[in-house]
Amino acid sequence: MKQRVSSTVYLVGAGPGDPELLTVKAARLLERADLILHDDLVPPAIVALAGPHADVVNVGKRCGTKGITQDEINMRMIEGAQQGLSVVRLKSGDPGIFGRLAEELDALESAGVPFEVVPGITAGIAAAASLGVSLTDRRTSTRVVVVTNHRAHGTHSAEQTDWKNLAREDTTLVIYMPGHDFASLRAELFAAGLPPEIPAVVVSRASTPDQRFEFSTLAEFDALPHLDPPTILMIGRSLDRARPEAARESVILALNETALNLSSL
Amino acid sequence: MKQRVSSTVYLVGAGPGDPELLTVKAARLLERADLILHDDLVPPAIVALAGPHADVVNVGKRCGTKGITQDEINMRMIEGAQQGLSVVRLKSGDPGIFGRLAEELDALESAGVPFEVVPGITAGIAAAASLGVSLTDRRTSTRVVVVTNHRAHGTHSAEQTDWKNLAREDTTLVIYMPGHDFASLRAELFAAGLPPEIPAVVVSRASTPDQRFEFSTLAEFDALPHLDPPTILMIGRSLDRARPEAARESVILALNETALNLSSL
Repeated sequence: MKQRVSSTVYLVGAGPGDPELLTVKAARLLERADLILHDDLVPPAIVALAGPHADVVNVGKRCGTKGITQDEINMRMIEGAQQGLSVVRLKSGDPGIFGRLAEELDALESAGVPFEVVPGITAGIAAAASLGVSLTDRRTSTRVVVVTNHRAHGTHSAEQTDWKNLAREDTTLVIYMPGHDFASLRAELFAAGLPPEIPAVVVSRASTPDQRFEFSTLAEFDALPHLDPPTILMIGRSLDRARPEAARESVILALNETALNLSSL
Repeated sequence: MKQRVSSTVYLVGAGPGDPELLTVKAARLLERADLILHDDLVPPAIVALAGPHADVVNVGKRCGTKGITQDEINMRMIEGAQQGLSVVRLKSGDPGIFGRLAEELDALESAGVPFEVVPGITAGIAAAASLGVSLTDRRTSTRVVVVTNHRAHGTHSAEQTDWKNLAREDTTLVIYMPGHDFASLRAELFAAGLPPEIPAVVVSRASTPDQRFEFSTLAEFDALPHLDPPTILMIGRSLDRARPEAARESVILALNETALNLSSL
């Protein structure tokens, strides 16, 4: 334990994109923050919840652009806290699901800076809600597997995902960053024993006004159009009950209500 | 499509217990609802967010007590919506994670009642945040498996969980309703190939003032004390970095701030 004079850094989940799906705590921390360091994927409507005095910095990295490094992000957080600022590190979805949270916590801990993690609605859970789907269903789906197909995510073993026993009929697969090579993924899932008629849904920008769904089956999902990122691929019997109509109604409601609702926060 | 005159039923995630971890949308729907049908696990501080005119009904079932049946819950939702009431079906955590959401959606759909699912922070994600842990860590943990060990959950196959490939060193296992027979579970996880020194943490009532953690390893977790339900058992390399101090600080902050914060909603 080094210095204890610094303020706390809040690592906050921004949720899937709909400002109404922020937690009450996240909304209030944003309103009070002096310094907000946010991912590129956090939409403007959420960043706009910052108070007028806040210093708001987009620290996001996009494929192909040279952005701020992880070390620089860590340093900004630490320096801000040591200056006594109220620092919010705003990460899309939930910070602990494919959010590189662990590296940032390690850096804060090494610097003796106290922190608190505020969980958020992760995209897979938001997508299921938009679809009117339960990720578990005791009649068909006993478990959920949350995984990425993004090789550059850098697994410690650098090996391919072993889908055997992961890809089962009684499992809902929620695949973050599914990539573009759906043909290879389809072949791997077939090899793991999944039947061709099992439903597959690609979800783009879940919970936002730009939300899109494309429905298919394992047999045919390699022919799905590529939607705007961030996307999630969901596969499983639970998707049999997807109700895209419910999803559309939900987004239209959100469009009509969001501005009104947030103004009274 | 039968009658379309009924109002929408909102199936809303109450989150893990901390009222500040409700979504903004959930808080607002509660405030406006005419009829709230809530699970037994939803804490009084969240139920108290109902408006003064709301009819609030605990429809929860506890082991050993004879409660309201699922059919009765469905009927209450449908009748309320057909009377034009604003109905909130409030479920602990996220509705789509071991929440029997699918059966309720099927009933609403059969009755021609429109619905919307509002996602919530599920207990496993809240527990990780309280522990200062990232469920994925590209250095150690490439995936998350969300599963229940509760046999009475009623899998369609009625078979035991096949842990092979699920229980791996590069996976964070998040086991809901882990039951009391940790000795059998330990034996199954050993048989699946997990090493004895891998960390295991039991979390009781994540995010609430009663939150408790007990730390162990796979070799010894059968000796853990049984904590008050709801509990979650988490196993994986990602737990190596658990910071229970961060958790305690977080709860103390929540205790001091919650009453103040919610009063201005």
